[in-house]
Amino acid sequence: MRDVSIIGIGQVPIGDRWDKPIYFLAVDAMLAALQDARVERIDSVHIGNMLSSTLSGQDLLSSLVTDEAGLRGVEAIKVEAACSSGGAAFREAYLAVASGQIDFALVCGVEKMTDHPGEEITAGLVSASDADWESAMGDTFVAINAQLMQRYMHEYKIPHSAFAPFPINAHRNAINNPYAMMHYELTQAMFDKARMIADPINLLDCSPVCDGAAAAVLCPTEIARQFSPFPIKVRASAIATDSLALHDRRSVLALDAVAMSAQKAYRQAGLQPSDIDFFEVHDAFSITAVMSLEACGFAAPGHGVELGQNGDIFLGGKIPVCTMGGLKARGHPVGATGMYQLVEATLQLRGLAGKNQVKDAAIGMAQNIGGSGSNVVTHILEREA
Amino acid sequence: MRDVSIIGIGQVPIGDRWDKPIYFLAVDAMLAALQDARVERIDSVHIGNMLSSTLSGQDLLSSLVTDEAGLRGVEAIKVEAACSSGGAAFREAYLAVASGQIDFALVCGVEKMTDHPGEEITAGLVSASDADWESAMGDTFVAINAQLMQRYMHEYKIPHSAFAPFPINAHRNAINNPYAMMHYELTQAMFDKARMIADPINLLDCSPVCDGAAAAVLCPTEIARQFSPFPIKVRASAIATDSLALHDRRSVLALDAVAMSAQKAYRQAGLQPSDIDFFEVHDAFSITAVMSLEACGFAAPGHGVELGQNGDIFLGGKIPVCTMGGLKARGHPVGATGMYQLVEATLQLRGLAGKNQVKDAAIGMAQNIGGSGSNVVTHILEREA
Repeated sequence: MRDVSIIGIGQVPIGDRWDKPIYFLAVDAMLAALQDARVERIDSVHIGNMLSSTLSGQDLLSSLVTDEAGLRGVEAIKVEAACSSGGAAFREAYLAVASGQIDFALVCGVEKMTDHPGEEITAGLVSASDADWESAMGDTFVAINAQLMQRYMHEYKIPHSAFAPFPINAHRNAINNPYAMMHYELTQAMFDKARMIADPINLLDCSPVCDGAAAAVLCPTEIARQFSPFPIKVRASAIATDSLALHDRRSVLALDAVAMSAQKAYRQAGLQPSDIDFFEVHDAFSITAVMSLEACGFAAPGHGVELGQNGDIFLGGKIPVCTMGGLKARGHPVGATGMYQLVEATLQLRGLAGKNQVKDAAIGMAQNIGGSGSNVVTHILEREA
Repeated sequence: MRDVSIIGIGQVPIGDRWDKPIYFLAVDAMLAALQDARVERIDSVHIGNMLSSTLSGQDLLSSLVTDEAGLRGVEAIKVEAACSSGGAAFREAYLAVASGQIDFALVCGVEKMTDHPGEEITAGLVSASDADWESAMGDTFVAINAQLMQRYMHEYKIPHSAFAPFPINAHRNAINNPYAMMHYELTQAMFDKARMIADPINLLDCSPVCDGAAAAVLCPTEIARQFSPFPIKVRASAIATDSLALHDRRSVLALDAVAMSAQKAYRQAGLQPSDIDFFEVHDAFSITAVMSLEACGFAAPGHGVELGQNGDIFLGGKIPVCTMGGLKARGHPVGATGMYQLVEATLQLRGLAGKNQVKDAAIGMAQNIGGSGSNVVTHILEREA
């Protein structure tokens, strides 16, 4: 099995991108990654996307985007894993290069949400839950996560205000990220007073609806230095799954797939949580970030919020998270998010994260979650010495 | 790069399967493949599906089906490439095993179409065309293929009745396939008199709307005989792409992606068309079968219909196609079709195709097309000596 490295990255500013159709957002990110990698040849294109079939009536986004990028003819594939589509597409590109059949793989996560009415977006997002047992009963995707947060707060006797450090950290970090959607600070008072969405989840617990695309070029590690002065090695790549419906789980608070996915990744890399210098966590809701940190071994069950209260998650803390703004403030264009996380982790490991640079960052982890913990993709990246 | 073999196959009867939800169709095929392979362990699940997001409001079919099959926790991924989703999922499973990271991959193509009103199915299918330049102009997917057929008939001066041997062959072969949807013979007269759908495509040029699922288990060739008395080796696996919109093509009659995909596969296997003992061709419409045979090198441009008129495509002919009924008569549950083709090719190469057995079949090709030739997956399989 060949080792695989990232030799190019590209991303577009996240926001309400009414100026471009979905395929041009993807093309912009892909061309930026190609230019960064300085490669002439691409053997395969891997697209991560959740909603283009439902919202835009466009299947075969793989072929369309490949053609629009000037790569007509090249092998192309689209992966859908709800909000973990981006990370899953990266894993497929990784396996393709690892196999030895593909030398240069271009992977792009892309999503266009804002062109559509709110009720269509809500209907699209809830398709990540169980259609027969959750959405058919009237659940929205926020409501499902609200059940998780309600149960968590009840079980561990944690007040809602204790979650504030997570969105506060994300917003603070996004200010220095020119690709982020939100460029303003949050305070505890703003968080406590925010409008309720689905009790106990309020507006500032939630990542925003938005458009975006991020891309990377992968090649075998052994030739990576020919193309990049700072290739970043993929040390681990893992996916684990769980039931879609919350009521089917062993424990609604355990996030088994998050734990299994991280454990597989640690095992592949021969590492443990204390070796991770920063963690691009999937903070779709503040409760998701807290429960993920616990499931990944950074805190004991019920103690995840303390990582926020102690400042451990801040830049300079023990385990910085959402170093460029996370889903909450960089934005969460669902099928693109996993690729934004990996692009940001690459920037950190290259030492090019600017004011948000994690000091001496050598090993970073990025975790992308589909559904309420139903499909979880974990990657560990390492700066080459 | 490791060689990869098929050690188990499974399929469910195609038709109007109102008796089962989409995930149980998939589970039935997957459990049949697991039982056939006699493996206890599965490392990854690869689902091919086109329409569950659009028609059933169900994303994350990968995790759902994996859970329902009793494999909760196992890595799972869903691939969408319109009507070539099944073949594309097989390719991803192939690359995963070839990489060395996955030993036992389970791949399943599944589709549930018949529960939905006709206009929703039509809207779902046309998402395989260009949303801005084709479907937005009122094109349906049949209408796009009708443009191809019209142009072909005009350019090469071929009458419509010359296409009849293709559906006639498919229906004849389906009679002996218990999993096929249609079990009756067609005649030239029936074909000539059939109801018009989109001029010149009539009802008997078209594959039917239906439900189905087919699955296979892959593992490294070197251990395949531990699990199957007749492992079937994957000699080639290739994808090529073209524009979605017909008007963007170099020539609408060339099907460049079909040709490139086949050429890549021939090159990988070190074979040429004359080495292929039978060809599971993508006869979504009779024009698709004819143009594909030309693009794959079995006939010169404009001469594909002669393969039907000479009987070359029949069982016992020079290049038998649709040996178990093809898309026309076995059925075309879109995202499942590529896996039905590969399961049927495996049956042929095992020598277990019953009355439809191609004599001394040693090498078979299966080609799965997404869109009007926009994403084309070609596999060549070989019986191990």
